[in-house]
Amino acid sequence: MKNKVITISREFGSGGRTIGKKTAKRLGIACYDSELIQKTAEESGFDAQYIQDAGEYAPSGLFANLSNRAFGPTNEDYLWKIQYQMISRLAEEGPCVIVGRCADYILKGKADCLRAFIHADLAFRAQRIVNVYGEREQSPEQRIKDKDRRRAAYHRFYTDMKWGHAQNYDITLNSGTLGIDHCVDLLVMLYEQGSFAGKDGNA
Amino acid sequence: MKNKVITISREFGSGGRTIGKKTAKRLGIACYDSELIQKTAEESGFDAQYIQDAGEYAPSGLFANLSNRAFGPTNEDYLWKIQYQMISRLAEEGPCVIVGRCADYILKGKADCLRAFIHADLAFRAQRIVNVYGEREQSPEQRIKDKDRRRAAYHRFYTDMKWGHAQNYDITLNSGTLGIDHCVDLLVMLYEQGSFAGKDGNA
Repeated sequence: MKNKVITISREFGSGGRTIGKKTAKRLGIACYDSELIQKTAEESGFDAQYIQDAGEYAPSGLFANLSNRAFGPTNEDYLWKIQYQMISRLAEEGPCVIVGRCADYILKGKADCLRAFIHADLAFRAQRIVNVYGEREQSPEQRIKDKDRRRAAYHRFYTDMKWGHAQNYDITLNSGTLGIDHCVDLLVMLYEQGSFAGKDGNA
Repeated sequence: MKNKVITISREFGSGGRTIGKKTAKRLGIACYDSELIQKTAEESGFDAQYIQDAGEYAPSGLFANLSNRAFGPTNEDYLWKIQYQMISRLAEEGPCVIVGRCADYILKGKADCLRAFIHADLAFRAQRIVNVYGEREQSPEQRIKDKDRRRAAYHRFYTDMKWGHAQNYDITLNSGTLGIDHCVDLLVMLYEQGSFAGKDGNA
């Protein structure tokens, strides 16, 4: 019997992580995000901040990476492998919510996954990241574009899936128009209905 | 006070029209699709079948159309204008569900719209169109690819929006994994919560 897992991909600033945490809390199941990074760090011996950067960003040198690969796996490849194993194991241990980290791809066939993507328009996200993370030297719009581009590149590099295309998910939600709490309501409802039993072979 | 309208774009065979009709029935509001085509036909004097084809398909001669435009608006442009006016008027008359016809684009700023996109994987849709529409000479997979390509081209030509990109919608749903009735549940829930009050300026 495969565990039910909600995977959440999200645009930076869309509140995807908050939605994941609130959904998990309402359902009484675990939520993995920064905790996951920490665990990875413990297993790999890499510094936690380095892992956060490497796991989030396809490095600015994607091409550099490709050439590095001529000499064997890179650090990013090694981290990818550890995260892959960890996410697979967490999904085996029990039902949970996993935010980011290509969990949707990693768990294909291994869990009864509800694959969600959270997005919002730029203005909503810009305002939100200033509220949540505070002002930075770089404008919020630039921070968003930069972070989204890196996430999309990372996803594409390791999974060959197009990040943010409706067809890759069971549900995508605009947190800016629907509101974060309503997004939580919808995910909780779907989870409780048990309506993602892999009818198309996703699980 | 703007009316609440659910607009549904959908991949061919995904059950988007069925979801629209069931949602409207549950909510006790009107649903426009083939009825809309009929009304358009009555107003324009065009043949109903011709309108169905022209409204659904960006004609195989998109380039031909472009050159035709050197001599003024084409029939397709005329139909677009009529549909544009009709959809705007229907949304003014009362809350409703509108399936297809770029209603999401047309009603921007004119109604309190919930913009939904329904999709499913190819195998699910292939089986469904054979069940619903019967066998044809062309394979179901080929019929689907053909129809989707034309819908996407029509949408892009008249709206400059990318069809099927999560960012263009408030919610996208995979009817193949979630099931048609659960998609209806979600849309009904969102409508009743009144949670699409245009927080990002969509309405």
